[in-house]
Amino acid sequence: MKKGMIKVSAFYPNGDGSTFDMDYYCNKHVPMAKSLLGGALKELAVDKGIAGGMPNSPSPYLAIGHLYFESIAEFQNAFGPHAEKLVADMPNYTNTQPVIQISEVQQ
Amino acid sequence: MKKGMIKVSAFYPNGDGSTFDMDYYCNKHVPMAKSLLGGALKELAVDKGIAGGMPNSPSPYLAIGHLYFESIAEFQNAFGPHAEKLVADMPNYTNTQPVIQISEVQQ
Repeated sequence: MKKGMIKVSAFYPNGDGSTFDMDYYCNKHVPMAKSLLGGALKELAVDKGIAGGMPNSPSPYLAIGHLYFESIAEFQNAFGPHAEKLVADMPNYTNTQPVIQISEVQQ
Repeated sequence: MKKGMIKVSAFYPNGDGSTFDMDYYCNKHVPMAKSLLGGALKELAVDKGIAGGMPNSPSPYLAIGHLYFESIAEFQNAFGPHAEKLVADMPNYTNTQPVIQISEVQQ
């Protein structure tokens, strides 16, 4: 991805009783997000956690979603009007509270 | 990135007194990793944390490095022989202990 782009990542924590429905996320939530965010959303990536760093350790996160935008302003303008709808869909695929990070792509 | 690829992510936690030298990481550590891991390393991405999800909140992670491989076996075969050298370089760019996650790319 291009240096300087903005990457908004949602980390869904692993833990006892934590759930994440990858099928719903990829086939319902992501298409909804793409449709609502429109052209401001330059790219979207989804990771499924499978392991931690130590042998037989669980992955820290069940899943991570990454959304790429050209700038913070483009992200805010695209996301703001639809934040409520996107957040309201969360209980349909997870019982966790995601950790959110906004990053600048270095390389 | 292609569905099914393996993504090894190192999350360097933010916190009081935590340091991360992005210049060293991008210009010394990453080239060293590329050289040691060779063709097994299909792609490498670096994120610089700039904010959290709430207004004026800090990013949960100072930086995140993502390494892409075709399979777990290719990652292990490439990384194993050089793990010690790569880990030994860590104090040159951070005083944190990274959280490691192995993910499978979904999209």
